[in-house]
Amino acid sequence: MTGSENVSHMKWWGWGVEGVAFDHRDKPALAPFVLANVGLDIDRPGRPRKDFADLAVQDPLAPPDLLTSLQKAVGPDHVHVDAMQRVVHTYGKSLRDLLRLRVGDLPRVPDVVVYPVDEQEVVAVLDAILAADAVLIPFGGGSNIAGSLEPSAQEARPIVSLDTGRMNSVLDIDEQSGVARIQAGAQGPAIEEQLGLRGWTLGHFPDSFTHSTLGGWVATRSSGMQSDKYGDIADITRAVRVVQPGGTLVTRPVPSTSTGPSVREMVLGSEGRLGVITEVTVQVHRIPQERLILGYLFPTWEDGLEAMRAISESDAAPSVTRVSDARETAFSFATRKQSRGVQSLKSSALRKMLTRKGWDLSSMCLSFIGYEGSSTHVAAQRKAVRSIVKKHGGLGIGRGPGELYDQKKFDTPYIRDFLLDRGAVADVSETSAAWSELLPLYRHTVRAAGQAFDRIGVQGWIMCHLSHSYHSGACLYFTFAFKHGADAIAQYDEVKVAVQQSFMDRMATLSHHHAVGIEHARWLAQDISGPGVVMLEGVFAAVDPGQHLNPGTIVPWREPRG
Amino acid sequence: MTGSENVSHMKWWGWGVEGVAFDHRDKPALAPFVLANVGLDIDRPGRPRKDFADLAVQDPLAPPDLLTSLQKAVGPDHVHVDAMQRVVHTYGKSLRDLLRLRVGDLPRVPDVVVYPVDEQEVVAVLDAILAADAVLIPFGGGSNIAGSLEPSAQEARPIVSLDTGRMNSVLDIDEQSGVARIQAGAQGPAIEEQLGLRGWTLGHFPDSFTHSTLGGWVATRSSGMQSDKYGDIADITRAVRVVQPGGTLVTRPVPSTSTGPSVREMVLGSEGRLGVITEVTVQVHRIPQERLILGYLFPTWEDGLEAMRAISESDAAPSVTRVSDARETAFSFATRKQSRGVQSLKSSALRKMLTRKGWDLSSMCLSFIGYEGSSTHVAAQRKAVRSIVKKHGGLGIGRGPGELYDQKKFDTPYIRDFLLDRGAVADVSETSAAWSELLPLYRHTVRAAGQAFDRIGVQGWIMCHLSHSYHSGACLYFTFAFKHGADAIAQYDEVKVAVQQSFMDRMATLSHHHAVGIEHARWLAQDISGPGVVMLEGVFAAVDPGQHLNPGTIVPWREPRG
Repeated sequence: MTGSENVSHMKWWGWGVEGVAFDHRDKPALAPFVLANVGLDIDRPGRPRKDFADLAVQDPLAPPDLLTSLQKAVGPDHVHVDAMQRVVHTYGKSLRDLLRLRVGDLPRVPDVVVYPVDEQEVVAVLDAILAADAVLIPFGGGSNIAGSLEPSAQEARPIVSLDTGRMNSVLDIDEQSGVARIQAGAQGPAIEEQLGLRGWTLGHFPDSFTHSTLGGWVATRSSGMQSDKYGDIADITRAVRVVQPGGTLVTRPVPSTSTGPSVREMVLGSEGRLGVITEVTVQVHRIPQERLILGYLFPTWEDGLEAMRAISESDAAPSVTRVSDARETAFSFATRKQSRGVQSLKSSALRKMLTRKGWDLSSMCLSFIGYEGSSTHVAAQRKAVRSIVKKHGGLGIGRGPGELYDQKKFDTPYIRDFLLDRGAVADVSETSAAWSELLPLYRHTVRAAGQAFDRIGVQGWIMCHLSHSYHSGACLYFTFAFKHGADAIAQYDEVKVAVQQSFMDRMATLSHHHAVGIEHARWLAQDISGPGVVMLEGVFAAVDPGQHLNPGTIVPWREPRG
Repeated sequence: MTGSENVSHMKWWGWGVEGVAFDHRDKPALAPFVLANVGLDIDRPGRPRKDFADLAVQDPLAPPDLLTSLQKAVGPDHVHVDAMQRVVHTYGKSLRDLLRLRVGDLPRVPDVVVYPVDEQEVVAVLDAILAADAVLIPFGGGSNIAGSLEPSAQEARPIVSLDTGRMNSVLDIDEQSGVARIQAGAQGPAIEEQLGLRGWTLGHFPDSFTHSTLGGWVATRSSGMQSDKYGDIADITRAVRVVQPGGTLVTRPVPSTSTGPSVREMVLGSEGRLGVITEVTVQVHRIPQERLILGYLFPTWEDGLEAMRAISESDAAPSVTRVSDARETAFSFATRKQSRGVQSLKSSALRKMLTRKGWDLSSMCLSFIGYEGSSTHVAAQRKAVRSIVKKHGGLGIGRGPGELYDQKKFDTPYIRDFLLDRGAVADVSETSAAWSELLPLYRHTVRAAGQAFDRIGVQGWIMCHLSHSYHSGACLYFTFAFKHGADAIAQYDEVKVAVQQSFMDRMATLSHHHAVGIEHARWLAQDISGPGVVMLEGVFAAVDPGQHLNPGTIVPWREPRG
């Protein structure tokens, strides 16, 4: 049993664990690339962050009765009111969160942090909160980037952050059915480790994998790198247990059901508004015999997208489909280490060969396609994909780049802190749309971002990759960056809003897998229509008439901050 | 544009079209089989049904203002108050419905039947209904067997049945994205015909296919025979348009999204409680190069189930997985025609061979497994399945039985009327559960049905097949029959309740794909827990505070009738 002192958290001011950071010194092409594209000299020393001791953290608003009943609920060792605990539980890791933490902008922090060890304790915590007319915000790994964890600055009631970090066990594996019961607070590595000991895998690997929890994935409708094979968390989740004011919601672990509108599905994406998820029954798979990710190159982004579409329409079933636009491809090449990885690309032999084939190397696009299963299955999928890639002018470049990508993918979020240290912001916005909408959506979004960069007077950068394929469409994942001025948040909002509004204008969605939170709430009615918002309000009000559960997240939209 | 006079309906008293009926005279083994197993002589003339003219149909409760505004909404030709229209729209085709129609048990029939031609007319109909404080029940093909269409006998407000039969067009196919926009009133054959002209298929083939609609499938979370490949309707549905009291719910046709609890998913299974579904965007597929269904035999039911489980765990991706228990296998053989189909099984050569292998022919189980796709894909799947089947003691018996099954599957529902004509009831209950629960569930249910047969003093029959496989479990589909006495409904309830309660007792669900209606509502809280029911009530109340939309369906449970 984990004590709350052993629940690890990310840096209070940024992504990941203390002592780990992005380092550009072994990537010689990066500094000139960044200088040329956003005008930032990354070799210059960065701007200082505030020290934790210099933050002005408000005193906790914790009535003695509430504290006493919380201590009774989880034990006195697992109730915390110190500033570090409370600051760590204030925000997720959105760019807005990082910017505010760096300057100590903390208008409202949770008053108490509690660490229940099981569902019974969660029930007792919720009872205490309801009795005290307080507010409960469930907290998993704290990796959310949509503002789903943030207390409202106007909240006058005591706020309790419920950290699920002590509920981190795989409780049971039903090997016959391929399902496992897992506590909601278990983080990615803990899940894979516990399952792996018995030869199983969940197969869910979001970029946040090392710092996010099963409960958080469910609460935000997360997707992972291999979701093409294993499904999004919505497909993986077979049953839930959720502690609510009216009792504990318990659904049955059946593969499919016709019991009216699905309450299991309503919990997916509920971001704490429908209670505390304590346990999830998930599909698990035997660790596959083979697993590999191959690299491919396409002459253009259009070719790459069309190849992914053709793969999705075919009988082939890869585990990963990913293709970067030319700008993201150039960025990937700029982050390669001196003498490893996609080194072969540098080789004049390959460049000469591609040029001879008539490729314009500046529009070339890098793709990764993954395969998992028996050797026979993997070989058949590779063969089917190879022929589709060839038909679209692409060519395979082997295992090296894919292996490197696979090892490094969880390090990507560290780059934001690296750039913030040096005076630039970088962030992501992702969406999904039908195949026929992807190119217009892409062009519209790149143009909209460009116009926003012009309005704020910066040299901006935007790049994109397709990250997941479905029968009827795909996820486009944009990353943008620029050297910010004095009011970084206002500048950021200008770009972020332009990108998100472009999604709305081109029949895409406000987010494919990062949730609504408060960051995307202003686009909710455009996305799901007014009557859709009414439906959400209805189910939230039925479960939580007193608005004690993470109020303000998803709906309603509050005036933008900044 | 279809006039309402051209919207065809099933027989007012039974399944399917006038002039088509089940006929046992070319199936010589059936009469002795039925006599031996339920003590019924099917060669004896049946019991007479009431003539339509002899039914006592109440006068319509249709205030002139309501009639006028409905006529204005859809045109006077498309508003009907005659007895035949109203009786046809009173029930679905559950066994309880058929029993009541045969004796003219019609405590409450809809007062008016309207046929809007498009969404705008649906809006006008709903406005008229709200203004008159009336009730709206959407009606698709009328094939529902869960009581989802039935007006409450206590309903004092005027009741309007909204027949979607004139909204039957495929509006658009986005060939690049593999999605089509289809009007909700389109029935299976109309959809496949319109899509087929352009080389596409929906791939959704429930047993009710010939008489059910897209809107009905969505409203009940339907499954089809090839759902292992194409997905249940919940997977196929990409976007919905639903006319509600507060406006029209419109969701976006994106492949996956993270916009809070999914309102698209809430419409799935909503059975009219959340409004009138007018249009659905669905995934469509190019008609596959090859499509075949092969027959297999297993020595025992346990072997057959275990083989299906092994297939689901493997990399193989068949389009159909189905295996019957020994009793259903015996029934299949008893319904074969004199000189066709599974004829080879009769051949003493095969029987001798199986006996020599040590098979007990009375526990033998018939299985169908389907394959669709390119020739290469189909060949690879067949090969993978063959090796799994062999490992579980099974053997292939070729194409004949599968082709016969494929041709005849939509005729099965006619058998209930055939038996009712002769004094016996037959009905189905289906569920799903985790793989590890299937055998205990099966045994428990067969025993529970047997005890119920004993209590009502009949020689009863229950048989079962696995109809759909998933990663984590499967659908078990039970059929039961017995020769009924004077109070057929009370006897039926005894058996039906025993079977459904067995599902609850063994961690299965109240229905895999037949919906809740009023028939299964009493088990809803056991299935999704009390807090789950509260969530459903919340979303229904938010959309329809006046309870004008199919009230009483799904929740709350009314006292059992009969």
